[in-house]
Amino acid sequence: MVKLAVDMMGGDDAPHIVLEAVEKAVQDFDDLEIILFGDEKQCHLNHPRVEIRHTTEEISMEDEPVRAIKRKKDSSMVRMAEAVKNGEVDGCVSAGNTGALMSAGLFIVGRLPGVARPALVVTLPTVSGKGVVFLDVGANADAKADHLYQNAVLGHIYAQKLRDIAEPRVALLNIGTEDKKGNSLTKEAFRLMSETDQFKFTGNIEAKSIMEDEADVIVTDGFTGNIVLKNLEGTARSFGKILKNDLLSSLKNKLAALVLKNDIKRIAKQLDYSEYGGSVLLGLDGIVVKAHGSSNAKAFYSAIRQAKIAGETKIVENMRAKVGDTDE
Amino acid sequence: MVKLAVDMMGGDDAPHIVLEAVEKAVQDFDDLEIILFGDEKQCHLNHPRVEIRHTTEEISMEDEPVRAIKRKKDSSMVRMAEAVKNGEVDGCVSAGNTGALMSAGLFIVGRLPGVARPALVVTLPTVSGKGVVFLDVGANADAKADHLYQNAVLGHIYAQKLRDIAEPRVALLNIGTEDKKGNSLTKEAFRLMSETDQFKFTGNIEAKSIMEDEADVIVTDGFTGNIVLKNLEGTARSFGKILKNDLLSSLKNKLAALVLKNDIKRIAKQLDYSEYGGSVLLGLDGIVVKAHGSSNAKAFYSAIRQAKIAGETKIVENMRAKVGDTDE
Repeated sequence: MVKLAVDMMGGDDAPHIVLEAVEKAVQDFDDLEIILFGDEKQCHLNHPRVEIRHTTEEISMEDEPVRAIKRKKDSSMVRMAEAVKNGEVDGCVSAGNTGALMSAGLFIVGRLPGVARPALVVTLPTVSGKGVVFLDVGANADAKADHLYQNAVLGHIYAQKLRDIAEPRVALLNIGTEDKKGNSLTKEAFRLMSETDQFKFTGNIEAKSIMEDEADVIVTDGFTGNIVLKNLEGTARSFGKILKNDLLSSLKNKLAALVLKNDIKRIAKQLDYSEYGGSVLLGLDGIVVKAHGSSNAKAFYSAIRQAKIAGETKIVENMRAKVGDTDE
Repeated sequence: MVKLAVDMMGGDDAPHIVLEAVEKAVQDFDDLEIILFGDEKQCHLNHPRVEIRHTTEEISMEDEPVRAIKRKKDSSMVRMAEAVKNGEVDGCVSAGNTGALMSAGLFIVGRLPGVARPALVVTLPTVSGKGVVFLDVGANADAKADHLYQNAVLGHIYAQKLRDIAEPRVALLNIGTEDKKGNSLTKEAFRLMSETDQFKFTGNIEAKSIMEDEADVIVTDGFTGNIVLKNLEGTARSFGKILKNDLLSSLKNKLAALVLKNDIKRIAKQLDYSEYGGSVLLGLDGIVVKAHGSSNAKAFYSAIRQAKIAGETKIVENMRAKVGDTDE
């Protein structure tokens, strides 16, 4: 049995899509229990494995993260994180304010011993459809080389446990594939990763190869990772617009485009990481999954599913055992 | 009259595509003179405004940049850069080894007084088709805040002169649009740019908005800029593959895809910055244009055209006048 805490109030379409996703999840998985945190008046869900805990405050997308976590003690997000902290649940899922969720993870759930900085991980789409583990996408914008090294350790375990890859190929995102390429940060991180036997380091990878299935885990700092993630999202969207404008400019194309319309839309969506079920904050003493703020019920459902697998595969326990080795 | 030096030997398909591009350029522009540097035996071009200077060495894509520039004194690239340095030509164009060309710029052509670090600038495609000036894409991988500030000054002048925008909107690439977002580098650069009246600073821009025509100049450091550039290139390519695999999986799609095939290919190419005529090394005491290594004749032609406009609009003289203000 896996028990998860879910933030009913976070995200653009909460609580509607959250409740829909939770309902489907407990129907699909007999071994899943959920505690919903939020306004009980808005919850009409009635299921033996779903419990509702009433909260009176909400953290909005505009709230300053650290302040919100420190002050809004009866918010759904804070109460949910406390349930992880005190061991009542195995993990939690929220589509709310990303910064606030990271602060809740850091200040309430707490870091694993030996973890200098938690990292936010996503699975990016690849050409084969397999996907690639990519971190950090924004938890630590001013990373040092040993943080990147630790990201590699965390990403390695994540790929083993959640993506079921026995020996993940770990690569470092860089501005050239040659060993000596990069800025001072990646050069030093390359050196650290080359000398380890904690994971299989395959060297530098360029941003043009991210989706080409050349690695199972790609490591970068939180600034660069966030830029890449949003660039990918933006390129998919802008590409879609250009395609649309262009294809509709002639009659023969107009007819053909009509046939392909839904397919093209679906493929553009494949490039949108938000469809891949959310990101996970790694390095904490508990499972914290962030669903995209604009999640629909399907995306939120897959975030719940991800938290459930993380619980079953004991990802936190695995990380606790491994990161001690990389302590500063 | 504008006089340019052209590296006949650089690039994957040299000298063939270089000669084709040069021939078309002198035909199209009556006020253009070209000195070609390379192996005279391979040059069959005969035109009153094209002169050939024989060189005996070549710098390959594999050569270590600084070493190649220092040792291969009779290479087409070194001789071309010397022609810029001694004022014989207004600028130069090469599709050869990027690092070597940057070194030739730095050590032979030399920096403008007051420029701490040169920057490599490209024009990225946008949804409207207008394009956006983007720098630095790889000249300075370990940038400081005042380097970013100087990139803004250089990009501003470039947009005015080469893209004919009277008052370019200059934005800083960052991981959020709010004023206080970012890593320590972008926070400090934001502060410097906010306090200036040298250009119109419009604040932070996210990577998902790069192609959305929200700015005319986007400033970043050489590491991040290179990652974005290659990510864009890779996304276009990977998107094309996914599209192809996917569309060809059903008969109705197969027929429709056949109609659209060339259009889709052309649009994917729009996302490939290499089609945009090359990048320019800014901050040097002369015009240095880098055509993409895999340039075809059309792309090399547009790199020549860009160098010609840069010469006509006196971009170097303009920068010399402005960057004194930002001297450290």
